[in-house]
Amino acid sequence: MAPPTKVTIIGSGNWGTAIAKIVGHNVRRRERFDNELRLFVYEEMVDGKKLSEIINETHENVKYLPGVRLPDNVVAVPDIRASVKDSDILVFVIPHQFVKNICGQLKGAVKSTAIGLSLIKGVDINETGLVLISSIIEDALAIPVSVLMGANLANEVAQEKFCETTIGCKDKDVGVMLKEMCQAPYFRVAVVDEVEAVELCGALKNVIAVAAGITDGLDQGDNTKAAVIRLGLMEMIKFIELFYPGRDKWIFLQSCGIADIIGGYCNGTNYKMTMQFMTSGKSFVQLERELMNGQKLQGPTTAAEVYEMLKNKGMEDQFPLFTAIHRISSEGMPAKELIKCLMHHPEHMDKEYHEHPFLHLRSVPATSPTSP
Amino acid sequence: MAPPTKVTIIGSGNWGTAIAKIVGHNVRRRERFDNELRLFVYEEMVDGKKLSEIINETHENVKYLPGVRLPDNVVAVPDIRASVKDSDILVFVIPHQFVKNICGQLKGAVKSTAIGLSLIKGVDINETGLVLISSIIEDALAIPVSVLMGANLANEVAQEKFCETTIGCKDKDVGVMLKEMCQAPYFRVAVVDEVEAVELCGALKNVIAVAAGITDGLDQGDNTKAAVIRLGLMEMIKFIELFYPGRDKWIFLQSCGIADIIGGYCNGTNYKMTMQFMTSGKSFVQLERELMNGQKLQGPTTAAEVYEMLKNKGMEDQFPLFTAIHRISSEGMPAKELIKCLMHHPEHMDKEYHEHPFLHLRSVPATSPTSP
Repeated sequence: MAPPTKVTIIGSGNWGTAIAKIVGHNVRRRERFDNELRLFVYEEMVDGKKLSEIINETHENVKYLPGVRLPDNVVAVPDIRASVKDSDILVFVIPHQFVKNICGQLKGAVKSTAIGLSLIKGVDINETGLVLISSIIEDALAIPVSVLMGANLANEVAQEKFCETTIGCKDKDVGVMLKEMCQAPYFRVAVVDEVEAVELCGALKNVIAVAAGITDGLDQGDNTKAAVIRLGLMEMIKFIELFYPGRDKWIFLQSCGIADIIGGYCNGTNYKMTMQFMTSGKSFVQLERELMNGQKLQGPTTAAEVYEMLKNKGMEDQFPLFTAIHRISSEGMPAKELIKCLMHHPEHMDKEYHEHPFLHLRSVPATSPTSP
Repeated sequence: MAPPTKVTIIGSGNWGTAIAKIVGHNVRRRERFDNELRLFVYEEMVDGKKLSEIINETHENVKYLPGVRLPDNVVAVPDIRASVKDSDILVFVIPHQFVKNICGQLKGAVKSTAIGLSLIKGVDINETGLVLISSIIEDALAIPVSVLMGANLANEVAQEKFCETTIGCKDKDVGVMLKEMCQAPYFRVAVVDEVEAVELCGALKNVIAVAAGITDGLDQGDNTKAAVIRLGLMEMIKFIELFYPGRDKWIFLQSCGIADIIGGYCNGTNYKMTMQFMTSGKSFVQLERELMNGQKLQGPTTAAEVYEMLKNKGMEDQFPLFTAIHRISSEGMPAKELIKCLMHHPEHMDKEYHEHPFLHLRSVPATSPTSP
């Protein structure tokens, strides 16, 4: 019999802790997994005591997910390299700006046969263009990385409120194992054999949340908001088709796609901060400094990265919503221009488009997407 | 040169009047149309004066769309048969319970070469099953009928707030003409060559709005709401595939699909009435009597019709959301059962499903849907 699969969760913010609750239950009741779930905790002092010790004694992450009891088999480990020792599955759930540093610390400590699962939303950019977080981890640690994305506000998941999620995984057997590890009666997992598209959905939906916030800030009403969200979805699909052609279009109807867009619009940080942006007259940079301790808001950052990619291909006018969100959020374009930018959206200009959504992308020589 | 195309709008509620404003502008500035737009007005007295006379004198529908100026070429006609005389395009925008009566009155008065465009949301049911409103009109008047559906709250359209809509039309030339007739800078039209699916979206989204209302009434949070809306969309797609197989899946991403679901959840009558249902403890029948003057709410009615269709095929368990909405809204099942019904949704049970969304429908002998 194969030795039981060991799991480590790297990151103990509210989402990391919420997922530790589910995975902790699952590894205890399923034979294929080792009973203990290790949780890497970035050590800090809480009321004069180490957070990792508090978690191990009270089974509660009093700082990031107070009031939620973790299973006893979840063990907090403050040493990053010790936390992954002999682990077969590494679940990454840290803020995306810490990924490179954490991977640097993990080099040489990770089992060569290990696999990764990234719950990190966001993308990075380098001189060659947009870079997925899963790729950064894959490249740094030489392990295959799957992703889990969906409409999953951590506090609601921790309270066992029903929701769905999507795992993107290229290996079917691994997908089945990850589903067993993550699924709960109130947390329903669908596995699809895409990684890039699932992950990009998680990043691009933040741009759409900014668009929805701008629309609401302009007091445009529900028709306009519905149109903006839909056009955002269409640009998301088109963007992914442009840079990762041939993806199964059904993934956009999974939790990582349309549900996460709806959830993100309803109550996400990007939406709320954009409402602040609209009502305060302050820039995003100023708001990030005042309200987010200087941390970057995902939506405007991702919009800037996306815009860079589109500009390199000369395709800004094919993505008027993404382009407008970047210009409004980072280049001082007045917010009310958003609606004007949408009035000549390629979605409405070309009747044929509705039958062959990617037909016009064929004019782009760098990629050759297939028609759906 | 062909004589100019004459247009009549049948119905002058707020949506009929809002669309008359757009169509009125368009027929005046486009050569192919006759300058005059006739608007059938069900005659009633407003402050001692006939509504049709008020509209013709003030160019405002003071009763159903006050504060909105109509173009001068919109002429209110209180005689239904006179209103359609020699008309080439009949736009139907009346409450769906009046369709049969109106069509009865129109028999013999309609030009044989006329075409119809239905803006009416809802479905009917007879002994053979579900019947589309467009089919009722087609059968009664022997004219082809297209449909226009989308996230289009009438008052917002009348205020020229940006939105999109979908025209479902099987004839391409007719589709182009209808787009010319209906599009405005703030009202963007996409034409697809489907009628039934577009129309069914408009009916089924009301069931999803009830589901969203129940979820919010249960105080389940945003993750759950996003999941319920997504599962509703998946059942909508599956239902249409079951009864009208082979439809282009892209239409569900048009305004008539996902945008109308989002719009209807945000602020529609079905959502608001369901919140009343959840907080008051009263039945829908009671609420319809008290708040809607006995008129039936679309969502519960459509859920009942959908349930009947599913029961006839023994497929209730393949559509747990639609089934639960019917049972909760009309059969006294406690609302909190909704979430339990979703925990074993076929969406989550079968991994293969996510690659071949309609595969399992193949076991139904009555229809033979094609895989997408």
